[in-house]
Amino acid sequence: MSDISIAQSVVLPPIKEVAARLGIAEDDLELYGKYKAKLPLRLIDEKKVAAAQLILVTAITPTPAGEGKTTVSIGLADGLRKIGKKAVVVLREPSLGPVFGAKGGATGGGRSQVSPMADINLHFTGDFNAVEKANNLLAALLDNVIQTAHHPLDIDPRTVLWKRCLDLNDRSLRQTIVGLGGKANGVMRADGFNITAASEVMAILCLATSLPDLKTRLGNILVAFSYTNQPIYARQLHAEAAMTILLRDALLPNLVQTLEQTPAIIHGGPFANIAQGTNTALATRMGLSLGDYVVTEAGFGADLGAEKFLNIKCGYTGLAPAAVVIVATVRALRHHGGATPAQLNTPDLARCERGFANLARHLENAQKFGYQPVVAINQFSSDTDEEVALVQQLCRALGVTAVLSTSWAEGGAGATALAEAVLTNIAAGTNRLRPLYAWDQPVKAKIETIAREIYGAVGVDYTAQAEADLRRIDRLGLAGLPICMAKTQKSFSDNEKLVGRPEGFRVTVRECELAAGAGFLIPILGTLLRMPGLPPVPASAGMDIDDNGVITGLS
Amino acid sequence: MSDISIAQSVVLPPIKEVAARLGIAEDDLELYGKYKAKLPLRLIDEKKVAAAQLILVTAITPTPAGEGKTTVSIGLADGLRKIGKKAVVVLREPSLGPVFGAKGGATGGGRSQVSPMADINLHFTGDFNAVEKANNLLAALLDNVIQTAHHPLDIDPRTVLWKRCLDLNDRSLRQTIVGLGGKANGVMRADGFNITAASEVMAILCLATSLPDLKTRLGNILVAFSYTNQPIYARQLHAEAAMTILLRDALLPNLVQTLEQTPAIIHGGPFANIAQGTNTALATRMGLSLGDYVVTEAGFGADLGAEKFLNIKCGYTGLAPAAVVIVATVRALRHHGGATPAQLNTPDLARCERGFANLARHLENAQKFGYQPVVAINQFSSDTDEEVALVQQLCRALGVTAVLSTSWAEGGAGATALAEAVLTNIAAGTNRLRPLYAWDQPVKAKIETIAREIYGAVGVDYTAQAEADLRRIDRLGLAGLPICMAKTQKSFSDNEKLVGRPEGFRVTVRECELAAGAGFLIPILGTLLRMPGLPPVPASAGMDIDDNGVITGLS
Repeated sequence: MSDISIAQSVVLPPIKEVAARLGIAEDDLELYGKYKAKLPLRLIDEKKVAAAQLILVTAITPTPAGEGKTTVSIGLADGLRKIGKKAVVVLREPSLGPVFGAKGGATGGGRSQVSPMADINLHFTGDFNAVEKANNLLAALLDNVIQTAHHPLDIDPRTVLWKRCLDLNDRSLRQTIVGLGGKANGVMRADGFNITAASEVMAILCLATSLPDLKTRLGNILVAFSYTNQPIYARQLHAEAAMTILLRDALLPNLVQTLEQTPAIIHGGPFANIAQGTNTALATRMGLSLGDYVVTEAGFGADLGAEKFLNIKCGYTGLAPAAVVIVATVRALRHHGGATPAQLNTPDLARCERGFANLARHLENAQKFGYQPVVAINQFSSDTDEEVALVQQLCRALGVTAVLSTSWAEGGAGATALAEAVLTNIAAGTNRLRPLYAWDQPVKAKIETIAREIYGAVGVDYTAQAEADLRRIDRLGLAGLPICMAKTQKSFSDNEKLVGRPEGFRVTVRECELAAGAGFLIPILGTLLRMPGLPPVPASAGMDIDDNGVITGLS
Repeated sequence: MSDISIAQSVVLPPIKEVAARLGIAEDDLELYGKYKAKLPLRLIDEKKVAAAQLILVTAITPTPAGEGKTTVSIGLADGLRKIGKKAVVVLREPSLGPVFGAKGGATGGGRSQVSPMADINLHFTGDFNAVEKANNLLAALLDNVIQTAHHPLDIDPRTVLWKRCLDLNDRSLRQTIVGLGGKANGVMRADGFNITAASEVMAILCLATSLPDLKTRLGNILVAFSYTNQPIYARQLHAEAAMTILLRDALLPNLVQTLEQTPAIIHGGPFANIAQGTNTALATRMGLSLGDYVVTEAGFGADLGAEKFLNIKCGYTGLAPAAVVIVATVRALRHHGGATPAQLNTPDLARCERGFANLARHLENAQKFGYQPVVAINQFSSDTDEEVALVQQLCRALGVTAVLSTSWAEGGAGATALAEAVLTNIAAGTNRLRPLYAWDQPVKAKIETIAREIYGAVGVDYTAQAEADLRRIDRLGLAGLPICMAKTQKSFSDNEKLVGRPEGFRVTVRECELAAGAGFLIPILGTLLRMPGLPPVPASAGMDIDDNGVITGLS
């Protein structure tokens, strides 16, 4: 059965019943249809936030299809609920790019899904659209100032940093020229579009702690420079109030449920290779206000998502996970052990053992942050018992518990063992977040720490452009911001071909961008696309909708 | 008091109560918060549609600020309700372009507003976003085929007709180049963005009679030509199903209310100078299913909105208004009588009398369609009693009733006289829709009829490009579609400087576009912008939102 058929076959209660079980009055809900609702920020209760346990789900270096972090996160929350715990799962919102492209949506799979699956994967409650409009209003206001001759801001159009965005995979928009057609139609300049998940507005929405904080951060976005090299911020364009107005509703976390009626909060969706890769800070706080155990995920492998979660998100919010779960698959271990794409589903103990080196490094990294991780082996049908036993044995040798999760096939019942293992891990009381670096260290020292300690690099090189970018960051007084590395998710290194546990490599910082509004620096390692493309046969070609509105082919 | 302060000062019942009074069960509503809901199409009842009375509100040739059609429409519906009639108002959705630009939102004004004003003017229920995404997915799919070397569709990138869209005023996007940056980043070609209200997808959404009809029309969009000059339709890109999926919820009409709790259906928002300028056909049918009297508006002056409503919308849907109301203002009469912008608010009987010629032509035009119109004089504070009396007297001389509407200041109580006049007009039983032209006439004959009969032109000229376009339309077998003229709203002619009632002029068709999906031909008279620009000081600069989320400066 396809994910969407499973999702369509389960009859769920209206979201107001799920909310009622959390003690939320119907009047507190802003319903979006019967199965989705936005929650008012007044439901955040800092006492409960401090008392509840946050469980961070991260992963091994993934294969292109992903290792099922979302599926495991949902399964774990359902599993915790099955053994009597008040659990909530908090996730990111899907982007339409992958939905119509190759990877598909982001609502889990099999019996571990959030619902309503189609709605969440499509427009959901309009948050992505609000981010897009706020992003693009800022761009229009900026070009409107550039259009005005002798404007006091004296913006040099060659210095514009701010791009427009669109939540679709559209490679033709990566590099554009705008403002053609003469005087009435703007000032001609090189431009480009990011996918909405890569917009700094998305990063800001996900770090904002309140409506006024959102407005302040939006005002702090650096958009361009003047002809005299003075920075131009969004607030100088009087953009931040209108942008905040566009984001007023988007700031409120969305409540939905899993197929097993576990409350799910899905809110915000920055990518993890170029941004911080985790849901909004307010959604996490909301989850912790409503549940005793909150399962959340950080995008891609732990070298990206978890590192940023622990250094940036925890740094800005004061949150700290009580436990870290690392999702591994036998398939990914085979991949890191040298399997070609065609060999990924072929059992191979030797490859698994070789590939374990990748997982081992992620386990060591978690320990550097102060966590004894729990490994969740997300079961696939091609796994053999021997391979699973091998992974468990190799983990045990490192003192780490590895539990098979079968929640894709069985729902929460397939993750109760994992849930028990996580509870035991928390009960041991030894986990305590230790940030990897102090924000007030020099920028290069912060980058070097991540590269050496997390990636295993032997050193960091800087291009001339990167050196210039760092000088600019110093000049603007922003060197004290945390680091949000932009790096391929396919390798610990900046070379996506180096799978497994590469050693002896150096990484190169090609540029260093500045997200002054979100509040982090973005060293760019290698080439990274902020606007994906569609595959030769996009997923959209396999979709249909019948005369009654029933959708097929969405995954 | 500003419009938004008035709106914020009125405490309204939840929309479910408004729905309940219409006999709609709460379970039938898809709520979007407490004050907005989408209505299922099964509530459309063709027997009721046939029995109810549709009142079309149109206008004199407007000044740039508009003459208050929306305000009068809302006031008239409130007025009908005040005198005991079951009335519903059906309107278009605002575009974010004017909201952040110069003109402001589109929710009426003063005491004649629809609510929640801020929500409706901002993202509302996401319909515009859905249109934008469907439009832009088609563009991405098209460029994705162009990217594939030797694709069987053999699309010539120089022939692409389909543009991307964005619901903001952003002049720099009017003319762009996309696909720069080499092989991986698309095929370089000239491109551009329309504002979302000008997208053919918006026009289609507003003409679709059902979900399957929507899918068929989307598939019929003409996007480009092959190197052998064969037309390429959206269905050949397998785009229409995914586009329909994106529009599934957007196809459902939105229910809100006026400040006096009259039910209001607000759905779809094509501009009237370049598209058909009226709300969705399904919204009109929904209104007629729920009320005995449905007040609806058609954009800009009657030469654009009403002509298209009566020839295109009525032609496609079988609907026919029971009455036509033409909104005039003393200010617009002064304008057509020669007042400069600075003189617009200065009482002047002579200018009013001269300017009446414009209104008179609109009255005659309504008669050509088979209607004896009612004039609503939308009161402004600068009007003198003498001017109002003059307009009424001039109308009376033509056998037309002209009633002062003070609903801006007084709400429905200020429009009961207008409501009575409209009821009397309907009761006379003489109105009967007579389409201006038969669709199966030659294209030039149809264009000529509109130009002569409605505009008062003495002839039509065609550029070489227009002639070539007409030959292409013939070749594609689409000459039988109705005509959707693209013309300035500021004059009966194609020269915006010719106010009043110009005579002896010719109009020039510069090009003739083809909306094969929406199902109309678009002769373009003069230069028309499908993407507006922002003024030097955009409305966004005067907006704010406080720490509690209270918005100011939105109008």
